[in-house]
Amino acid sequence: MSNYFDYAATCPIDEEALEAYIKAAREFYGNTSSLHDTGTKAEVLLSHCRQTLADLLEVNKEGVYFTSGGTESNLLAIEGLMKAGKGNHMITSDAEHSSVKNSAKRLQAEGYEVSLVPLSKEGTIDVNELEKLMREDTVLVSIQHVNGDIGTIQPIKRIREVCDKWGALLHSDCVQSFGKVELNSIIPCLDSFSLSSHKVYGPKGAGALYINPSVSFQPFLPNGTHEAGVRAGTVNTPGIAAFTTAAAKSIRELHKRQSKIESLKREFLTALNDIRNHVTVVCESVNSVPIIGICMHGLEGQWVMLEANRRGYAFSTGSACQTGRGGFPSILTAVGLNEEEAKSFIRLSFSHDQTSEDILGIVDCLKEIVAEYAVLSSQIEKPAFYK
Amino acid sequence: MSNYFDYAATCPIDEEALEAYIKAAREFYGNTSSLHDTGTKAEVLLSHCRQTLADLLEVNKEGVYFTSGGTESNLLAIEGLMKAGKGNHMITSDAEHSSVKNSAKRLQAEGYEVSLVPLSKEGTIDVNELEKLMREDTVLVSIQHVNGDIGTIQPIKRIREVCDKWGALLHSDCVQSFGKVELNSIIPCLDSFSLSSHKVYGPKGAGALYINPSVSFQPFLPNGTHEAGVRAGTVNTPGIAAFTTAAAKSIRELHKRQSKIESLKREFLTALNDIRNHVTVVCESVNSVPIIGICMHGLEGQWVMLEANRRGYAFSTGSACQTGRGGFPSILTAVGLNEEEAKSFIRLSFSHDQTSEDILGIVDCLKEIVAEYAVLSSQIEKPAFYK
Repeated sequence: MSNYFDYAATCPIDEEALEAYIKAAREFYGNTSSLHDTGTKAEVLLSHCRQTLADLLEVNKEGVYFTSGGTESNLLAIEGLMKAGKGNHMITSDAEHSSVKNSAKRLQAEGYEVSLVPLSKEGTIDVNELEKLMREDTVLVSIQHVNGDIGTIQPIKRIREVCDKWGALLHSDCVQSFGKVELNSIIPCLDSFSLSSHKVYGPKGAGALYINPSVSFQPFLPNGTHEAGVRAGTVNTPGIAAFTTAAAKSIRELHKRQSKIESLKREFLTALNDIRNHVTVVCESVNSVPIIGICMHGLEGQWVMLEANRRGYAFSTGSACQTGRGGFPSILTAVGLNEEEAKSFIRLSFSHDQTSEDILGIVDCLKEIVAEYAVLSSQIEKPAFYK
Repeated sequence: MSNYFDYAATCPIDEEALEAYIKAAREFYGNTSSLHDTGTKAEVLLSHCRQTLADLLEVNKEGVYFTSGGTESNLLAIEGLMKAGKGNHMITSDAEHSSVKNSAKRLQAEGYEVSLVPLSKEGTIDVNELEKLMREDTVLVSIQHVNGDIGTIQPIKRIREVCDKWGALLHSDCVQSFGKVELNSIIPCLDSFSLSSHKVYGPKGAGALYINPSVSFQPFLPNGTHEAGVRAGTVNTPGIAAFTTAAAKSIRELHKRQSKIESLKREFLTALNDIRNHVTVVCESVNSVPIIGICMHGLEGQWVMLEANRRGYAFSTGSACQTGRGGFPSILTAVGLNEEEAKSFIRLSFSHDQTSEDILGIVDCLKEIVAEYAVLSSQIEKPAFYK
């Protein structure tokens, strides 16, 4: 039985992936840049992983770079593409992961201009508004594929059309979509995209960046020798082997996992009907994205999260990369929620490994918390000594 | 029996460290920024690792930041300290690891000025020359502790004295010294320093940066939530736990490892006497730095390395982070070698796990190669049909 509903923050490692890690750490420990057999052996494994990931993504392996994770991938892509571009302008959205927003802020500090495209009430990029923001000097549009807080899927193909009209590049943070939704049909729309290992049951500290080899790119550090100069530092071969193992499994099992997630989400939403007048699912839709965002009417999301934790359940109040600051995800105001509603937000994220029993468990937990609050608030409103 | 003499490039993982990795990956998989128990459990482990490393280094744990490795640590330190400084000037040396030199080049591209301090024939920083380069606007001096190519130890205390006179900060890349030589007496001289996990038998993809908490620092990405904002991206708790395990072991066993390395080096240099007129040890000294750089008279280092590889031995022609480009370590010209001598360079690096038998094996291998070359060159000089 699983009481963990925070798979969008991080996943436990898959046992097959861990086995790959252990084997690579013991037997393929050489530095991939070393020219002797110990190094070559590691390089051959690395090259095999690169080819495997490229095949899974149906891309040219020359464009696949392994990194330390999604944050680094987004940073390398945004800086590398912007600095190789002729213009000075990039567009992203306020719904992006902090690594994208903060990479854009870094560029702003260097004099680049950054525009934020607004979102519709449906939680997706407003493509008409994007069109209005496009300029002759727009080098890059960076829009995530799936939002990590409320699970909405962005209209990548329509965004690509707008980029094409203006000759802009398109980067997408695919950290929350890879291994969760079908990606290969949107990949041809992208000039670059980021993946993370630990979101697909791989090890932490690994990820990948794809950059279409035909696109100009300025490496973050000059004169790099590892990863074709795009990423410096000794290559984490064991982490990459384990990530590739987890990635391959997630794609191999994609359809099975997708239908399982859809079915779990449907069960969740049905069970939630008992307290539907106490909650609002933000931008509700039943698809294979394993993320559901909920506003708990009149409750603080932080309090709900802690009450659930007291009952043994783990979920979050939004991306772990920003809730450390005690705020709420900025996508909530972007889709039109006011601050009180946004503060009542919780995010549940699921795994294909979970069962109907797990789903009923978490919904029961939420019901209990709603009921507990009703009692608490009735006590507050009508304290006994006032009667 | 070990035929691997490239421990300065990377080490195989210590089995205790690997066990720590496996345990943390399975049991402490939460995101350290998540506020529920699964996250807290990971955060407690992370905090324990930070305290352990701080205790080993005898520093304040508030200044210990975990990173993806030495390259990232050097980049974060150099950018973070320079950008928080009031001046525009930094000093480093041509003997530094590529990550330091390339971080400095990044800054130069942004308009910062970088001076390179020359080295003496002994392979150490010329402190008088350093003094001459110091300026009112010098923010940072970045000098490695131990050189990764020839193993020379830099005079950190004297460099600190010069920095103090000018009010400059001192960063040191301690990747090749941590766990190899006594570090704690020079740490109080440093404002920041970098460590790498895989050079001390920990996992790849982990490292640490220490920045004295009293020093002003600009985080690389704004608004970071992990690692006190200094380093973004989900924390690689298993990698950090394994790194900490390996680091603790390397410090616990430091004296034993040091005397073992000294004894192995002595045996190596003695055995090398048979071909002393064919080789020159660069900046020879017997200490616990497990690195020896050798010029093979008249031979190409690359050829010697490949011939040794054919015989089952692994060593390098310098840092794996630069030999991918086919060049030779720049410290060689910095200490006065000409290009021909530099091209004849090989680097051997040792482990405390090796034996006298291993040492005799590698020296026999070098002897064979020298003899083979003598035969080859005599054939070339006097081909039979000319006689």
